[in-house]
Amino acid sequence: MPSTNFCQDEACPPYSLMDDYSEGAHPQILEALLRTNSTQQVSYGGDDYSNTARQLIREKINCTEDEAEIFFVPSGTSANLISIASCLRPYEAVITLETGHIACKEAGAIEATGHKLILVPPVDGKMTTTNLQKAMQQNQFFPHMAKPRLLYISNASETGTVYTKRELSNLSALCKQLNLLLLVDGARIGTALCSKKNDMTLHDIFEYSDIFWIGGTKAGALMGEAIVVKKQLAEGFVFHLKQHGALLAKGRIMGVQFVELFRDDLFFTLAGHANAMAEKISANFEKLGHELAAETATNQVFVTLPMDLVQRLQDRFRFYIWEQLDDGRVMVRLVTSWATDEMQVDKFNAWVAQWTAASKEFAT
Amino acid sequence: MPSTNFCQDEACPPYSLMDDYSEGAHPQILEALLRTNSTQQVSYGGDDYSNTARQLIREKINCTEDEAEIFFVPSGTSANLISIASCLRPYEAVITLETGHIACKEAGAIEATGHKLILVPPVDGKMTTTNLQKAMQQNQFFPHMAKPRLLYISNASETGTVYTKRELSNLSALCKQLNLLLLVDGARIGTALCSKKNDMTLHDIFEYSDIFWIGGTKAGALMGEAIVVKKQLAEGFVFHLKQHGALLAKGRIMGVQFVELFRDDLFFTLAGHANAMAEKISANFEKLGHELAAETATNQVFVTLPMDLVQRLQDRFRFYIWEQLDDGRVMVRLVTSWATDEMQVDKFNAWVAQWTAASKEFAT
Amino acid sequence: MPSTNFCQDEACPPYSLMDDYSEGAHPQILEALLRTNSTQQVSYGGDDYSNTARQLIREKINCTEDEAEIFFVPSGTSANLISIASCLRPYEAVITLETGHIACKEAGAIEATGHKLILVPPVDGKMTTTNLQKAMQQNQFFPHMAKPRLLYISNASETGTVYTKRELSNLSALCKQLNLLLLVDGARIGTALCSKKNDMTLHDIFEYSDIFWIGGTKAGALMGEAIVVKKQLAEGFVFHLKQHGALLAKGRIMGVQFVELFRDDLFFTLAGHANAMAEKISANFEKLGHELAAETATNQVFVTLPMDLVQRLQDRFRFYIWEQLDDGRVMVRLVTSWATDEMQVDKFNAWVAQWTAASKEFAT
Amino acid sequence: MPSTNFCQDEACPPYSLMDDYSEGAHPQILEALLRTNSTQQVSYGGDDYSNTARQLIREKINCTEDEAEIFFVPSGTSANLISIASCLRPYEAVITLETGHIACKEAGAIEATGHKLILVPPVDGKMTTTNLQKAMQQNQFFPHMAKPRLLYISNASETGTVYTKRELSNLSALCKQLNLLLLVDGARIGTALCSKKNDMTLHDIFEYSDIFWIGGTKAGALMGEAIVVKKQLAEGFVFHLKQHGALLAKGRIMGVQFVELFRDDLFFTLAGHANAMAEKISANFEKLGHELAAETATNQVFVTLPMDLVQRLQDRFRFYIWEQLDDGRVMVRLVTSWATDEMQVDKFNAWVAQWTAASKEFAT
Repeated sequence: MPSTNFCQDEACPPYSLMDDYSEGAHPQILEALLRTNSTQQVSYGGDDYSNTARQLIREKINCTEDEAEIFFVPSGTSANLISIASCLRPYEAVITLETGHIACKEAGAIEATGHKLILVPPVDGKMTTTNLQKAMQQNQFFPHMAKPRLLYISNASETGTVYTKRELSNLSALCKQLNLLLLVDGARIGTALCSKKNDMTLHDIFEYSDIFWIGGTKAGALMGEAIVVKKQLAEGFVFHLKQHGALLAKGRIMGVQFVELFRDDLFFTLAGHANAMAEKISANFEKLGHELAAETATNQVFVTLPMDLVQRLQDRFRFYIWEQLDDGRVMVRLVTSWATDEMQVDKFNAWVAQWTAASKEFAT
Repeated sequence: MPSTNFCQDEACPPYSLMDDYSEGAHPQILEALLRTNSTQQVSYGGDDYSNTARQLIREKINCTEDEAEIFFVPSGTSANLISIASCLRPYEAVITLETGHIACKEAGAIEATGHKLILVPPVDGKMTTTNLQKAMQQNQFFPHMAKPRLLYISNASETGTVYTKRELSNLSALCKQLNLLLLVDGARIGTALCSKKNDMTLHDIFEYSDIFWIGGTKAGALMGEAIVVKKQLAEGFVFHLKQHGALLAKGRIMGVQFVELFRDDLFFTLAGHANAMAEKISANFEKLGHELAAETATNQVFVTLPMDLVQRLQDRFRFYIWEQLDDGRVMVRLVTSWATDEMQVDKFNAWVAQWTAASKEFAT
Repeated sequence: MPSTNFCQDEACPPYSLMDDYSEGAHPQILEALLRTNSTQQVSYGGDDYSNTARQLIREKINCTEDEAEIFFVPSGTSANLISIASCLRPYEAVITLETGHIACKEAGAIEATGHKLILVPPVDGKMTTTNLQKAMQQNQFFPHMAKPRLLYISNASETGTVYTKRELSNLSALCKQLNLLLLVDGARIGTALCSKKNDMTLHDIFEYSDIFWIGGTKAGALMGEAIVVKKQLAEGFVFHLKQHGALLAKGRIMGVQFVELFRDDLFFTLAGHANAMAEKISANFEKLGHELAAETATNQVFVTLPMDLVQRLQDRFRFYIWEQLDDGRVMVRLVTSWATDEMQVDKFNAWVAQWTAASKEFAT
Repeated sequence: MPSTNFCQDEACPPYSLMDDYSEGAHPQILEALLRTNSTQQVSYGGDDYSNTARQLIREKINCTEDEAEIFFVPSGTSANLISIASCLRPYEAVITLETGHIACKEAGAIEATGHKLILVPPVDGKMTTTNLQKAMQQNQFFPHMAKPRLLYISNASETGTVYTKRELSNLSALCKQLNLLLLVDGARIGTALCSKKNDMTLHDIFEYSDIFWIGGTKAGALMGEAIVVKKQLAEGFVFHLKQHGALLAKGRIMGVQFVELFRDDLFFTLAGHANAMAEKISANFEKLGHELAAETATNQVFVTLPMDLVQRLQDRFRFYIWEQLDDGRVMVRLVTSWATDEMQVDKFNAWVAQWTAASKEFAT
């Protein structure tokens, strides 16, 4: 193996491609916080900025006040646990993928509100009508089994794939038939809607779901997610926010941020950038003959690499090793974001290219 | 009654003395968020700023890493419910004043984690050892009564009074004797420690309690409270944060803010300003012969006023009417904060003086 | 003070007037368990006996299957916690007397299902419309206070008093107006309906409440309470039973017992006996000039006695000392039941009479 | 196919082999309830019978009062949910087989106490150290995953298999190493310990677990399970019983029953009968060439049969069809119990033999 030292600048810390929340907020958002800082506002979400943000989001969704209410919470886990706890009776259960964020990344937050999770294997990172049907059939032993009542999915999925309109409308129709509510976790809904694979609008997401949320944290905000709740499920929702510590006294700080994200198309512009950076990394891998573990649809790249290349990359970049393969290779996850520096991406790609070329030369 | 129109500037909106969270953050805090915005940081509270903030707070408390761990959460309700849920077994109950924030302002958040509240009447807004003893005696019918296990108090109290060192040390000693943990809600601990009535330090609060928290939201931050947990109760605490949606991906935003509050004495300076503004309002009332409903120790003024004066004030100021008295007068609550504009306070005081003078003249 | 030894038979253990569950079951009930023992039955409450019991209870209530469903649970705490958990949303609270069984004798069982209790002072052991109104007014600070949604009362009350038809219908009407559900804890509903103070039928209880339950444990059964749930609240109720461990595999054992209690009027006959025994004790006290702490309406006698008399009685009888009075006397509670032996009551009364006479003689 | 009508007595209802709780209690138990019925006893589990039962069980386990406390609850779901809730902190999770009773037959009772279940695939109906290790490895992403803290297994397992001493001691050792508590659900522990496959004593179960329970309901009692809790986990356990409605006022009824089950060896005699009846059914199937779906170790027989035979049997016997196979055959479950009538077993076997013979004859 070649032992060239690729790194020119030992002093600089490795650049993170670990996740999409390593930086603060988009500058436009911080400027808005500064600009609005000294006005006095009503507390607990009744402020002008939150109200404006709600109106802007409704316009993007293309729905009226009579159709949906919008609530802001500080974190994705809050959004999920409050959404679920708000619409289930104590004996009702949630159907989720085994890989669902609520199933394996939220420390039992849903169960802590008293609800069972029914786990379903993913196909391409996604829920299918077939698997949903099967899960329903296997959970019908009344009254010994908790009653399935809500389907939870994420778009983009945990592995970065996206639902097509046909897939989501089919799931939605099946849910109605099975008397299931549908909750769409939108922690990365911006990248989903900006994916080249996407054929949906925010309105489609709204139409096909009962509750969905729009992630701000991973989309350029300091924090904050906007939960869109169909009117008939919105009664008393604010009590849930309060009870779970998610009703901030200075609700304005989420209002101000979502105004910035949605008054023009900043939300989508930033998601587009994240996707473009992932695409650039992904294309380079493909061109150089490295095997993608999944097609790159949004801002996550899953690629299988030789251990040596990974170690070299780790000198200058930080990222998750997702899985150790039996053949000695490793599958790594690379995440881009609204803040990802294209120069760093170019450097990353150059390194991969350089190592790959050297490796081939050495092999011959 | 005189009908002079006091208001010179009809266009300006009324100035709020409703609460201490009507504005955003102190400019120095926003500037720090801007300055640190683009550095990449580890997520979920492991960032450099949070670590620095923890160290600064420990220095102010005068304790070591081996004595206490510090966690940041986005809201006071989060701080209370997580602190309580983290250290009680399911059958254990909380003793609180009837007026305690957890008893009447958090939408049942503590009960939602499964724990009973045992209510005790306040004396001067505070818990007394006598009343605590009595509550313990009345809750000993094993196993039919939930077991009292934690005393919850707030400093400053809900009515703005503060505990003396003697009072807190006595409560603390009694708690130890009764096998009770002691949690101090510090949503307004800055104003308490800056009160002219105060004879405690942060170290005293730490020493006498098992868990206490330092409110950022009411002290000039956008949001965020710092929970100080004695080492022996800190194991697994992070799981609780995560499970309740209080572990922010960009934990840095709370770290950065608490660094600013505690690297010099901004936290105390701002609390001192709030107290001074309340003192000014309070002194004016006293001088003019209006009856204070409680001595003004921190940033809340409770005063009993004629309805006519209240209505005139309402043209230019917003505040809570706390209680309608039988004699036609009303008790109002006026809250000042780090952001309270002294010019507005002067204007407020002038109005009160003017009305009072006119009223006396009219009466004679 | 006379020191005559009243006790003739030192060997016999003291007779208990502690509670109404010191014995097993009425013999007719045990015989029915024996008689039906070997038939095979469907499990989990679907057995013939449970179905017959449901039908018999509906006949006594005078309601149809379309109006109410009936469920059997093993304990009063189960009945209360399941009834409440089944019809409240997470942020909804229960209004109860401070002395309510759920408030101070169930180890926080209701809070363990996540719901807040709002405490109201009793008048003559009962809830009044005035106090209910006041509690509602004090719990309306949206969304910071949990939303009151259910009124819990007991008939007979914790102190043995009973609601009149007028009182219950007024409470019921007020509940409807305030959008509150009404739950009647009927642990001692038999003695309430057999009280000389009573002017209600089971049908009245049914009509005025949304859920009520008929206590078997204190009425001659080994265990078991029958919860009567208005149809519109009954959907999914069985899931709650199962989830809380109250759906017994051999549900038949509760069915068989309730068949015996309700196929003739055993339930009421036994309650009548309990009341008669209490009345006898109570009347004797009054005749002898001892002060009742409350009028005796059901099977509990609260009486204030000199300590010396109490100590003498304690040689031969077991009962609770309810309260130490400042004048040296004590208030004791004496409870009779379906199983109370009239000979023991006569002996008790004779002792009281003998002591009182001797005491008077000594005093003169 | 032959169409002989096997049934001679059309009038008799089909005999149930559905479960092991279709009858009441063993007569000796009912007689004991009668015999002890009128003595007055202390309530809530402090009665003489419960204390004697505790002592008898400790003798069978061969442990002292200092080593274990014993509590009686009315149902298996109560036993599981209380045992688990009593020893976990809110963020701790339970590892269980996918087929575990708590995972799929208790309507989400464990989740309703706030705890996550981590599901593991069974091998021969049982947990293996390999699968346990793997589950641990997959649930270590601190603090985003709930912390695994308790292993739940059942002996006999849900499919009637039993753990060997080696298997249980290995699991126990691994649990200690991984800092997991071990709970053994003993709903059918009698049949497990009486299995021909068993090489353990009650003492072994006690030694290897932290909490285990002895099922009374399926072993000849009307209801009632005895939870054996190692001393260090027993503090406050009674509060849990009370809070979950499982502390019966007349705790004596469980005490009396367990005295009968354990004062001689009635508990084991009855389990032995159940196993013998299953063995007889199972052996007949094997002799006649029908395929067992699992080896018969306790009181459950899983056998794969032609649909025609199943339909004939259904005229006279009730049992569960467990699974429809693709080849048209069905897998059925037959459950025997302490109450199973050997004449009915003989009749069942004769029918199977007769049909099988006729079927073969017809085939040739």
